[in-house]
Amino acid sequence: MDKEAFAISCFKSPFLGDDGAVVGDFVYSKDLFFEGTHFKKSWLTPFQIGQKAMLVNISDAIVMNAKPKFALLGFVMPKNLSQNEIAQISLGIKKTCKDYGIQVIGGDTIKGDKIGISVTIISRLEKKAVFRNGVKNGDFLAFTGHLGQSLKNLKTLLNGYEISSNSRFVKPILKGDFFYKSAKFINAAMDISDGLNSDLPKILNASKKGIKFIKKLSQNELKSGEEYEILFSFSPKNRTKIEQIAKKTRTKITIFAKATKGHYKTNAKSHHF
Amino acid sequence: MDKEAFAISCFKSPFLGDDGAVVGDFVYSKDLFFEGTHFKKSWLTPFQIGQKAMLVNISDAIVMNAKPKFALLGFVMPKNLSQNEIAQISLGIKKTCKDYGIQVIGGDTIKGDKIGISVTIISRLEKKAVFRNGVKNGDFLAFTGHLGQSLKNLKTLLNGYEISSNSRFVKPILKGDFFYKSAKFINAAMDISDGLNSDLPKILNASKKGIKFIKKLSQNELKSGEEYEILFSFSPKNRTKIEQIAKKTRTKITIFAKATKGHYKTNAKSHHF
Repeated sequence: MDKEAFAISCFKSPFLGDDGAVVGDFVYSKDLFFEGTHFKKSWLTPFQIGQKAMLVNISDAIVMNAKPKFALLGFVMPKNLSQNEIAQISLGIKKTCKDYGIQVIGGDTIKGDKIGISVTIISRLEKKAVFRNGVKNGDFLAFTGHLGQSLKNLKTLLNGYEISSNSRFVKPILKGDFFYKSAKFINAAMDISDGLNSDLPKILNASKKGIKFIKKLSQNELKSGEEYEILFSFSPKNRTKIEQIAKKTRTKITIFAKATKGHYKTNAKSHHF
Repeated sequence: MDKEAFAISCFKSPFLGDDGAVVGDFVYSKDLFFEGTHFKKSWLTPFQIGQKAMLVNISDAIVMNAKPKFALLGFVMPKNLSQNEIAQISLGIKKTCKDYGIQVIGGDTIKGDKIGISVTIISRLEKKAVFRNGVKNGDFLAFTGHLGQSLKNLKTLLNGYEISSNSRFVKPILKGDFFYKSAKFINAAMDISDGLNSDLPKILNASKKGIKFIKKLSQNELKSGEEYEILFSFSPKNRTKIEQIAKKTRTKITIFAKATKGHYKTNAKSHHF
């Protein structure tokens, strides 16, 4: 067991294990976005740092079928961060909050060695929550968008080259339009943050299901993390409806497997870099 | 304006400026507790780190007159943190959560250079919230407990000596018993985290009031941060009730000033170390 899994195992709670915790009509989610773990300062502009910190957190709300409403921010600022950089990070956060109708209601700021943003999102459930543990036997497993670009771009960055500011690694394109409309036909979902190889076991183990691949995926597709595409499952009887909504919202979806009885295990490790 | 104040000024919101944000019947608060900013690893045992991370956050809920119910944790773990240390930090968190009836419902763990714990507390308002901006003209200003020990102990630590594990710097003694009972007679409150010199302007400026000292406080009392005692104001007509509750809950309170028309300003900087 790695340290992160061990730390989580120290806290036993029926709420843990999903992208967010459902309490009444609210969903609470929290993700850290830290320099050195999720990005290097040379990879993202200050605006993009603020923007991505929010988007990876909003992603958690979307896959639970909840509408993000409020945010609390914890902001760790290195001494050498200029006032202009602070303003730009804040702008990235505020612009993204505005796009999604989120109000920043509180937070904390401290000095530290590296940039760190801790975001808590408070979301409202207007319809039923979607969990990871809902995969049914015979369900199709699918994902939105294209997988692989994030890993490819990460490798480019690690080799010291630049990537396009349109890269999903810089700015994930969240699939809320598709997901909110199709959620009533979806049995289970999570966002792809660590890569399919790491995320598939999470949804399958939570649901106590195995898997039969019906489409071969490339290593690049399987390993690419920080995609913030949606991994989801649905009954074959809802396939037409799901595909119609995908078409209507111009969302590419790839059905790649069927859920089976049994269990699934890989030794894949989650990666950031 | 220092960087922390500047970062906060980037986010204008009617919710900001209190220890927690009130939304409906809930209060949301978030504080960071990070190695290098709030503590050195040699100063606190892993258990004490987890314990203090929770207590400084629970303090925010108490001074808003809200009961902490749920917590989300963001845990930054250095590579050299052992499994035993992780378990001990978790134990400090869990024990404190149990003492206060808090359920941990979610979080995130990442690797980093130093230990960092970001805590979000979701609290329920059973009665009226107490804010910082409620100080009335003529109100008494008071604080709970003794101030000064935390700064004294911090200086001892900075000089390389050890301090007692009973120190308030190690384990703040929260005054929930007194505050929940007396809140209906209290006009404004906040916890003393940065020191009276820094915290007084916050409550007075929020309330647009000045101050007339009726008791001389020592520099030690004025400068000592991380006390997590409560700074509060109340009408002279409630003095007897407040003093009765203080006696009943064995809480020392010190009335040290009266709120006046006007405004109050210091150049004091907030300190951790």
